[in-house]
Amino acid sequence: MEYAPNDLTSRERYKVLTGFVVPRPIAWVTTIGPAGVVNAAPYSFFNAFCEDPPLCMFAVNLRPDGRVKDTLVNIQRTGEFVVNIADEPLARAMHDSSGDFPPEIGEPGYLGLRLAPSTKVAVPRLADAPWAMECKTWKTIDVNGNRQLILGEGLNFHIRDELWDRDAMRVRMDRYHPVGRMFADRYCRTDDRIEFPPAEGAPGA
Amino acid sequence: MEYAPNDLTSRERYKVLTGFVVPRPIAWVTTIGPAGVVNAAPYSFFNAFCEDPPLCMFAVNLRPDGRVKDTLVNIQRTGEFVVNIADEPLARAMHDSSGDFPPEIGEPGYLGLRLAPSTKVAVPRLADAPWAMECKTWKTIDVNGNRQLILGEGLNFHIRDELWDRDAMRVRMDRYHPVGRMFADRYCRTDDRIEFPPAEGAPGA
Repeated sequence: MEYAPNDLTSRERYKVLTGFVVPRPIAWVTTIGPAGVVNAAPYSFFNAFCEDPPLCMFAVNLRPDGRVKDTLVNIQRTGEFVVNIADEPLARAMHDSSGDFPPEIGEPGYLGLRLAPSTKVAVPRLADAPWAMECKTWKTIDVNGNRQLILGEGLNFHIRDELWDRDAMRVRMDRYHPVGRMFADRYCRTDDRIEFPPAEGAPGA
Repeated sequence: MEYAPNDLTSRERYKVLTGFVVPRPIAWVTTIGPAGVVNAAPYSFFNAFCEDPPLCMFAVNLRPDGRVKDTLVNIQRTGEFVVNIADEPLARAMHDSSGDFPPEIGEPGYLGLRLAPSTKVAVPRLADAPWAMECKTWKTIDVNGNRQLILGEGLNFHIRDELWDRDAMRVRMDRYHPVGRMFADRYCRTDDRIEFPPAEGAPGA
């Protein structure tokens, strides 16, 4: 099957991309509104991209009715956000926080999620997330006025103690059970793992 | 556990990001060199970000010895590349293509991977990949001179026939078995899936 972008509607292109570019990591982004309401919403057009400085990027589109999402409004006002990662026990709440909530209702409060203060930004993190990165906006890229690509610089990392090997300075991967985003309302667990030997390359390199 | 970026070496920051921002989708990027050698290499600082236009982004760093990777040299010269996705049968070859190969040795040739012509770009795609997107460079972002963030605009999609439901215009997710990147040389299968009901949000939205 072969399609040029113009063979497809915008919705169909979205399905071609979100159906095949999987599994996607999920930024569960917390932000804070002008009245102090803490917002949390998941974004799977997301990844880390650099360690020096720590950079991540996620994309925020408009709601189907054209309204701007609270996440974007809050980031444009404050320049701050926290990327939290969800593991299996938090997956359902993460998914539910993708619903449509009015600005005056914070998803963490509504869904019973505990917050914890951040160190470098005013936006709280999700206390039970296995990992969180406090961020300030590093750069934003506007795409056609209806999608913002937000690059965040990591200012501080939080790691659940049991998931970190302080001697090796690395994740205890056997204890870590994050979920990835698949198509539509589907996610994948990540415990069915493969480990390959280091890639050898070819002589002459 | 809490770390500021400056508490960590660059290598440790890399481990904090690649250990926890998982599972990551993998762009198996093909490019073409000046002598016609086709290069293929996997990048997991990658995702799709937009459908209108179709946009993806991946990050290319320098090799540990400071050399520029063939992928970047080729994209800077031609402005073209193809993002291929690997499923389980291709996972080992994808991993092996991450090794160090001299510019005159193409990974697809060395590893016995079949190529197929693209339609809109001169760079071939991997014939057995379940999905591929022909791309031209949309924007590049330099980070400190040692990391390039490459945003690609999709010009054409290829989908393995059996994976596409033409009536519903969507992926046949039950037949699709892509792998995701975990920490270091680890990957995850994606068949252990969860489906949640659509998120309801809260009254008043």
